[in-house]
Amino acid sequence: MPDHVAIIDLLGALAYGELSAFDRLAEDARMAPSLSGRAALAEMAAVEIGHYRRLAERLTMLGVTPEEAMAPFAPALDGFHSTTVPSDWLEGLVKAYVGDGLAADFYREVADFVDPATRELMLDVLADTGSAAFVVREVRAAIASQPALAGRLALWGRRLVGEAISQTQHVLAEHDSLAELLVEGTGDLSGIAALIRRITDKHAERMATLGLHG
Amino acid sequence: MPDHVAIIDLLGALAYGELSAFDRLAEDARMAPSLSGRAALAEMAAVEIGHYRRLAERLTMLGVTPEEAMAPFAPALDGFHSTTVPSDWLEGLVKAYVGDGLAADFYREVADFVDPATRELMLDVLADTGSAAFVVREVRAAIASQPALAGRLALWGRRLVGEAISQTQHVLAEHDSLAELLVEGTGDLSGIAALIRRITDKHAERMATLGLHG
Repeated sequence: MPDHVAIIDLLGALAYGELSAFDRLAEDARMAPSLSGRAALAEMAAVEIGHYRRLAERLTMLGVTPEEAMAPFAPALDGFHSTTVPSDWLEGLVKAYVGDGLAADFYREVADFVDPATRELMLDVLADTGSAAFVVREVRAAIASQPALAGRLALWGRRLVGEAISQTQHVLAEHDSLAELLVEGTGDLSGIAALIRRITDKHAERMATLGLHG
Repeated sequence: MPDHVAIIDLLGALAYGELSAFDRLAEDARMAPSLSGRAALAEMAAVEIGHYRRLAERLTMLGVTPEEAMAPFAPALDGFHSTTVPSDWLEGLVKAYVGDGLAADFYREVADFVDPATRELMLDVLADTGSAAFVVREVRAAIASQPALAGRLALWGRRLVGEAISQTQHVLAEHDSLAELLVEGTGDLSGIAALIRRITDKHAERMATLGLHG
C-alpha cells in the first residue's frame, strides 16, 4: 500500500489540477461566441471547484493544508497551461475535453493503486459532469460547417497530449513518492508501457469522437 | 402585480449579474497572494454560477432563453465592471463584498414587489454564502497590519457605490418595465428616496464592518 506521502502528493496534484482547470475554463469562457456558451464553460469551471473543495477537505483530514499539498505541483500544471493557451473558442473547448479526459484517464489508472477511501474520492471527482457532451456537440457542429478547421484542431490535440506527457514526466521525476506509486502499481516497465498505451488509445478515441484524427 | 415582461427583465438582469460576477471573481482570484485565497475567491465564483443556473432554469420555464433575457443588461453590467477593475487583491475583495452587498440589497427591496414564486427564487439566490466572512477577515487583517490602506480602500468603496448607482440609473432609464415596477412598488418618489436611503445606509454599515469609513 502506498505511504501517506504518496497519497498526499496524489491528492495535492489532483486538487491543484482542479483549481487550475477552474482558472483556465473561467478564462476561456470569455472567448465564447454566445452568452449560453459562456455560461456552459463557467458551469464546467464551477464543477471543478466543487471537486477541489472535496479534495481540500480530505487533505485537511489527512493533516496537511491544501496549500502545502498543492504547492509542489503548481509549476508543472501552470507550465502545461501557459504552453497551451487556446487561441480561440474552439481550441479552448478541445483543450477542456482532451485535457480533462487525459487527466481523468491517468488518475483513474492510479486510483487502482491506492486505498479504497482515496480511490472512491478520486473516482467521484473524476466522474464526467455532462460537460463533455456540450463540447462534442459544439466542436462537431463547427467542423461540419467549416471542414478546414479539422486539420488545425487535430494538430492542437496532438500538441495538448505532447505537453501533458512532458509535464507528467517532470512531475514524476521530481516526486519519488508518485514515481514509486506508479512503478509498484503497474508492476514493472512493461506495465507502465501498457498504462501509457491505454491512455493514448483513449485519447485517440476522444479525438475521433470530436471528428478529428488524433 | 408586475407584468410578465418586468419579471423576465428582472430575472434576466439578475442572471447576467451572476454570470458577470463569476467572471469578475474568477479573474480577481488570480491576484490572490496565496493558493487558499485563490481557492476562496474561486469558490465564491462557483456559488454565483449555481445561482445563475437556477435563474436560467426559471427563465426557460417562463418561455424565454436565458440569453435573450440577459442580453439587454450586459452593457450596463459590463460597464460597471470595466469602470471598476480592481488594481490589487484587496480592492478585488472589497468589490466582491460591497458590490454583491449593494446588488443583494437592491434586489431584496424589489423582491417585495413581485409574485411569491419569483420572490422566493430571488431571496434564495441572494442569500449570503459565507464568503462575506472571508472578505471581512482578510480586509480587516490587512488594514490592521497596514493602517494607511484604509484611506485608499474607503475611496474605492465610494467609487464602487457611485458607479453602481450610475449604471442602475441607466438600466432603469432604458427599461420602462423595471422603472414601473420600482415606482409602483415604492408608491411614489418619496418611496424611491426611502429605498435609496436604506440601500446607502446598509452600504455604510458594510464599509464600517470592513473597518472603513464609507
